[in-house]
This record gives sequence, structure tokens and C-alpha cells, in this order.
Amino acid sequence: MSAFEELVRARRDVRHFLTDGLDEEEVDRLLALAHSAPSVGLSQPWRFVRIASAALRERLAAHVDDQVARAGEIYKGEEDRLYRSLKLHGLREAPVLFAVYCDEGTETGHRLGAITMPEARRYSCVMAIHTIWLAARTQGIGMGWVSILDPATVDTMLGVPENWRCLGLLCLGYPTSEEAAPELERRGWEHRIDWRSTVVSR
Amino acid sequence: MSAFEELVRARRDVRHFLTDGLDEEEVDRLLALAHSAPSVGLSQPWRFVRIASAALRERLAAHVDDQVARAGEIYKGEEDRLYRSLKLHGLREAPVLFAVYCDEGTETGHRLGAITMPEARRYSCVMAIHTIWLAARTQGIGMGWVSILDPATVDTMLGVPENWRCLGLLCLGYPTSEEAAPELERRGWEHRIDWRSTVVSR
Repeated sequence: MSAFEELVRARRDVRHFLTDGLDEEEVDRLLALAHSAPSVGLSQPWRFVRIASAALRERLAAHVDDQVARAGEIYKGEEDRLYRSLKLHGLREAPVLFAVYCDEGTETGHRLGAITMPEARRYSCVMAIHTIWLAARTQGIGMGWVSILDPATVDTMLGVPENWRCLGLLCLGYPTSEEAAPELERRGWEHRIDWRSTVVSR
Repeated sequence: MSAFEELVRARRDVRHFLTDGLDEEEVDRLLALAHSAPSVGLSQPWRFVRIASAALRERLAAHVDDQVARAGEIYKGEEDRLYRSLKLHGLREAPVLFAVYCDEGTETGHRLGAITMPEARRYSCVMAIHTIWLAARTQGIGMGWVSILDPATVDTMLGVPENWRCLGLLCLGYPTSEEAAPELERRGWEHRIDWRSTVVSR
């Protein structure tokens, strides 16, 4: 298991990107591999919206900045100062940007597994995202998943079909540095807890 | 990327297990690695409930059988016949069984990223599950994620805290066979679509 363990432990949520472009064949390879992620009933409900327009990218970045500021209203004092100093996305620098959606209306998979827990389809999309995250890391490419946003606003900006559900924005590019620990831990926001504390028996 | 690509493509949703036990140190190693999955705000909200009681296992299996039958009421004719012939879980055979939960009330991570899209915490748990799935596969261990269940019923059976949200049941064990294609494709339920059909540009 060790090469995979190393990969999992080396993966970071990246917010500091070089602006150097990515090889488009590499990007295609990441998307193709994501398509081998598990999906409930083989529904393959992930949909990727590549943000090609610079104007659209800037509107998305401005929207996220606004949402980050609003979400931060719950913090006071030292926590507020620390929150404001965190860089939470690389939407303006990352050379490749995707919005990820779940097609909640897909007939692929014939609704198997989507009746009792409809969220299972969204969970399938999460595993496609995670596949890209890990695969990118094997190539030295960093990814950041941006979820501080208002899905309805982003849906309107992107003009997606009505039954698509937004999972967030993915920033991809080469990171400015390799880090051994999560940025939120290095900055003193939160630390990693003992995994044993998350397991109980019944 | 190729070793990781191979791993992703070889992973299957397993429903046919040998009853041979797993090494408990191996199981701990999987859980420990899952703890390095990405989590929003470093909230680490995954909670694993190990099903140790044989009686509880049988109650869960009977519940899922019932939910599978109910969910199948939408199918007619040939589709109904095919649905009834599918084996959708290995809850009675798999030597290791977990329920996976998201602690929606955790203060770890100080709610960063959990205000605008609270589902991001559940998505973090999905990546922990996916980490176990892939790590298990590197050791020849198969996993099946069972999500055809009623979360409220399972919560009551397991007596979990009120703000824990159920993501499903994980069956782990050695598979009876290695398969190159998804079982739902081999059985003619659904086929893999072209990944390019899932990408659009804006």
C-alpha cells in the first residue's frame, strides 16, 4: 500500500499557484481518469464545466471573495484576524479552472441507488473530484477545491441546466511550493486529530 | 501517473466476498489513512461505526434487503427481472462491516467552509471512504458501498448521536473474483459512457 499511502499523505489543498499553463493532454487524461471513479448504479453523474472565459473567471473570483467575507462574519477577535489573513482560493492564478456539477436528472444507471439516498449521486461526483486531486498530485499538479460560494449564483453565471447541482470550483496548476502539512494547520487554524477518536464499535 | 491510473481502473464495487477475516492491523491502517483525506476547513468530520455484533449485522442486512425490494418497485418487465437478479450487497458475508457517518455538529475546523455549503463536510467523508476503497484495493481487499437504506432506521439501530448523518455501509473483505469491468456493466444494467460527453466549456 505504501506508494498510495505516500500519495494520499502528500496531497494538499492548494491555494498558491504558479500561472504556468498545463498541458491540455494532461488535463484530458485527468478528466478521463475521473470517469473511472465509483458511481451509484453506474450513473456517472459528474459534469465538468471548463471556465474558458477570463471575464467569467473574474466574476467567479469576485463572487467567492464576497462569500468568504460574509462567511467570516461569525468570527471575532484573534480568530477573525487569522481568518482574514488566510488565502482560501487561487481562482485568479490557477491556469485551469472547472466548476463541477452533479446531473441529478440523469437516466444513466436507471436510478439504481438514487431512490433511497439521492445524495449518493453527488457523492459519486465527489469521488470523481478526489480522483482528479490524487491523479494531479502524481504529476506534481496541485488542486484546490473551492466551496465557499452560493451555488444558485454560480449556476446562473454558468447557465447550467436546471437539474445540475453545483459541488464547487476546482483550481488546477503547479503549486508555488510543496508542503508537508495542511496550510490550515501550518497557519494555526486547526490541527489534525487522532484518527482513533473517529472510530466507535457497536 | 500510471500506477495510480491502474489502481483507479482496477477498483470495483464488490458484493461477492469470501468470509475469510482481515488482519486487524490492516483494517487500522486503512482507517488511519482515511484520516489523511481532504476535509473542508480541516474539520475531519468522518466517524466510523464498526459493526461488531452479529445480531446487528443481520438486522442491517434484513433492512437493506427490504429497502432494495421497495426501491425496485419502479421497474417493470425485463428491467424488473434483471433488477431482482442483481446482488447489491455483501452485508452477510463480508468479514468487516462499517457504517460511515458525518458529524454535522463538529467544531473541529471552526466551521470554515461549512456555512455556505454545509454539504462540504459530508463530501469530506466521501473522500475518506474513497481513500479506504483505493487503499484496500492495493492490498487485494475489496469494498462495497451500500447506500440503499433508510438513514433514520439505521441511525436508530446504531444509536448514534443526533447530529451524525449516515453516508452508508461499507463491506470489506477479499472478493471471490477479480473483475475487469463493473458488475452492473457485465450484467447488462448500464454501460460506461464516453467521458468527453461530461465536459462542457463556458
